[in-house]
Amino acid sequence: MVNHPLEWRINVPHATTSTVLVPHPYCSPHIRVCTLPLGFIMGFLTTIWGFLQRAWIIAVTEPNKLMHCLKVGLALSLVSLFYYMRPLYQGVGGNAMWAVMTVVVVSEYTVGATLSKSVNRATGTFLAGALAVGVHWVATQSGEKLEPVILQASVFLLAAAATFSRFIPSIKARFDYGAMIFILTFSLVSVSGYRVQKLFKLAHDRLSTIAIGTSICILISMLVCPVWAGTELHNLIKNNMEKLSDSLDGCVAEYFGNDVKSNNSKSEASHKILQAYKCTLNSKATEESLANFARWEPAHGGFNFGHPWKEYLKVGASLRSCAYCIEALNGGSICSDAKVPDFLKTHFGKFCIRLSASSSAVLKELAVAISTMKKSSKIDVMVEEMRNAVQELENALKSLSRQQIASTETKTGDSVNDIGEGNASPVVVTLAEIVPLVTVTSLLIEIAARTEKIAEAVNGLADKAEFRVESAENTKKSQTQKVKQISAKDEDEKTMMTLEKV
Amino acid sequence: MVNHPLEWRINVPHATTSTVLVPHPYCSPHIRVCTLPLGFIMGFLTTIWGFLQRAWIIAVTEPNKLMHCLKVGLALSLVSLFYYMRPLYQGVGGNAMWAVMTVVVVSEYTVGATLSKSVNRATGTFLAGALAVGVHWVATQSGEKLEPVILQASVFLLAAAATFSRFIPSIKARFDYGAMIFILTFSLVSVSGYRVQKLFKLAHDRLSTIAIGTSICILISMLVCPVWAGTELHNLIKNNMEKLSDSLDGCVAEYFGNDVKSNNSKSEASHKILQAYKCTLNSKATEESLANFARWEPAHGGFNFGHPWKEYLKVGASLRSCAYCIEALNGGSICSDAKVPDFLKTHFGKFCIRLSASSSAVLKELAVAISTMKKSSKIDVMVEEMRNAVQELENALKSLSRQQIASTETKTGDSVNDIGEGNASPVVVTLAEIVPLVTVTSLLIEIAARTEKIAEAVNGLADKAEFRVESAENTKKSQTQKVKQISAKDEDEKTMMTLEKV
Repeated sequence: MVNHPLEWRINVPHATTSTVLVPHPYCSPHIRVCTLPLGFIMGFLTTIWGFLQRAWIIAVTEPNKLMHCLKVGLALSLVSLFYYMRPLYQGVGGNAMWAVMTVVVVSEYTVGATLSKSVNRATGTFLAGALAVGVHWVATQSGEKLEPVILQASVFLLAAAATFSRFIPSIKARFDYGAMIFILTFSLVSVSGYRVQKLFKLAHDRLSTIAIGTSICILISMLVCPVWAGTELHNLIKNNMEKLSDSLDGCVAEYFGNDVKSNNSKSEASHKILQAYKCTLNSKATEESLANFARWEPAHGGFNFGHPWKEYLKVGASLRSCAYCIEALNGGSICSDAKVPDFLKTHFGKFCIRLSASSSAVLKELAVAISTMKKSSKIDVMVEEMRNAVQELENALKSLSRQQIASTETKTGDSVNDIGEGNASPVVVTLAEIVPLVTVTSLLIEIAARTEKIAEAVNGLADKAEFRVESAENTKKSQTQKVKQISAKDEDEKTMMTLEKV
Repeated sequence: MVNHPLEWRINVPHATTSTVLVPHPYCSPHIRVCTLPLGFIMGFLTTIWGFLQRAWIIAVTEPNKLMHCLKVGLALSLVSLFYYMRPLYQGVGGNAMWAVMTVVVVSEYTVGATLSKSVNRATGTFLAGALAVGVHWVATQSGEKLEPVILQASVFLLAAAATFSRFIPSIKARFDYGAMIFILTFSLVSVSGYRVQKLFKLAHDRLSTIAIGTSICILISMLVCPVWAGTELHNLIKNNMEKLSDSLDGCVAEYFGNDVKSNNSKSEASHKILQAYKCTLNSKATEESLANFARWEPAHGGFNFGHPWKEYLKVGASLRSCAYCIEALNGGSICSDAKVPDFLKTHFGKFCIRLSASSSAVLKELAVAISTMKKSSKIDVMVEEMRNAVQELENALKSLSRQQIASTETKTGDSVNDIGEGNASPVVVTLAEIVPLVTVTSLLIEIAARTEKIAEAVNGLADKAEFRVESAENTKKSQTQKVKQISAKDEDEKTMMTLEKV
């Protein structure tokens, strides 16, 4: 054989000579074999690096999560001591493995979730164990031939029934894990009961190891930097409220007048604020699971046992309903339409900004009320203030229809406008030009209505959770603020009246 | 002691005689003891009855869920056969229990979820087992004193690291269960390796039993009435689209003119239709988990392996964005304001209903395109139709501003309106009166814009999933329909023009 480099020969039908394809020097098989794994390794390393970076960000921003990992490690180390200490090992028998398994499965981020899983696991195991022992007794009484049939049938029926119960929403929300453990334990005990003669010993071992595992987990989760589901829910609702308030402010500020600012600084910070409300839109599932876990938790912080966690869900739902309106307001064609005449934008901007400012002030005050767990004495005044702002905006709309869109039919199709009697400059305005403005206005009015609903929901929470009433000193402060607000309003009304007269 | 009925004596300070409280005959302790458990039992039976009723409703409306329960029962029965058949039992050793456990834990409703859990369980077990054997070897080489220290430290570190990885979103979405099984297996093998001398046998047994359990589950879930996560996602998106379309129609019909109908029939059916869009609002979590599971599934039905499930998420997001607008439209103060003059409502109702009808027709057509997996040949025409409807509505707004709100400043503050030159009856309209109408109008325009986004998303899906193009016959049908639509539009324009001239 001649030792020359590999060649491919192609016969091109219409060409006069046949073309010989010589392999490109950089594509030689030897080099390819080397570069392929190099690229693969580089890609792999990049992935790992990106992964580590993301992990680092989580560790820095949420140290509680890092702490949770150390807690799991600690719980596992503690439980594996049962293996290394001989006396303990002999105590719970060779089944100490179950304790390890319990710790791994039951360790959850929040105390409520850990408690819920522990109770589910213990109850499921106990019920299934008792039932399995009963069925086993019946089976052994019915003769050797019938025994496996009874055991098989009972496993089939109970597994199917317990699986079905997991589809029922009320069971799924609270006892999903318990139902799974029920099936598991029943199958294990009933099936292995046929072999292992000491059935009671097995059931007893399993229960005691589960008790050891769950108590280690519960103690560690409650004593070492506890993360309470209740507190998480409380903070989630409070933060969502603040974000909603910021987004509302940002959204209205962007539409009216903040166009003057430089685009660079805007895109950095204000875009973030504008989008902040979005996390409210999809928080329903998180809120519900936190509320479910919070019910299992004992009294902690300012929360008693039996704190009305369901009320938080109502507040959350009303927040979402308000967020939907902001999302509609923030949507493409409503806000972006820049056809509105400047003078109208300035005129209405004043009222709209005041309304949105008072709505967002109500939201901020409610957030403070929730976070301090004190009934706000200012809130009624502020809601009244918001209602007045709505009224003013509606009045402004009415006065606009009388004064500024006084259009008359002309041949050319233009509408001519006269502001008052003494005005020298006629302004042309058509209805189509003010459509975006009217829409923003009425969405803001709707947002104010929904903000009132939020205030009602928070009020319901405050009543049921027995929030304290703010001290007299704070009430005084709020009253001086109220006086200031009223005087500011009066001044504004005066300027409005002078504007109208001009 | 005297045997007389129990008495309570109270000394009332300001009364002249002391009052003796004789127990009420119906409250005697004997009767109370009997009624308490009776009430308790009745309450318990009522709860059970309600529970069974709900279960029955689920079983009747969703037979697939009932089937799933029977499948779980079947899988457990099959796997417990390993216990009853001696040769098989001796084959996998005394650890057949692991197979039972695997079946219970891995059996999920959809094929994708079962596959995902199976692969996670197998991979997690294999990796952890291999690592644990390695660590165990290192530990045994380092002397008897250092051995438990190395094992403990490795359990602590790896458990903490694996727990932390579960917080990273990309891991959580796909490998959450695998990470848990990794911790579980590593702890079990590494800890029990200290006692059980036959470590390799343990690892081998665990792997083979898991293989048996997962293969039984996978086979049953794929062969007996399979529920594919992909199909579920596909249908969810399609149904949400149809519901959105129905709600949009219902919402606009309720606002314009359907007030004539009796309230009874309305509250029954139409309320349900009106609220149908709400299930779109919170479907994000379901969609994401279904898309995650669908990735694991092999080709089934019309879906190839590698079907672009992520595109469904984009369609879902655009559907939600449209639903937010409908929710704002459906909200209290926008629609309920009945101040709008009837003639304007009738005039605009025509255009609004046409726009909403064309938007909902686009949505219905997109739903058909998704469900048949065929690119609709009509959709471009229909989107164009919708754009025309938007244009007409905008024109109507413009013509209104010229003709119907021609208000002039009068001393009494009333605005007088003349429709055209030859009109005999002047109509009084203020801007405040048409605010709700303008808002509904511009929300409908925004909904049309978002419907276009949905159409784009579905188009993206159709391109990536390589939907077939509709046959020529269907195209012909759609063209005749288009011609009909255009002629209908022309007629409408003629009537509008005559209306304007009147």
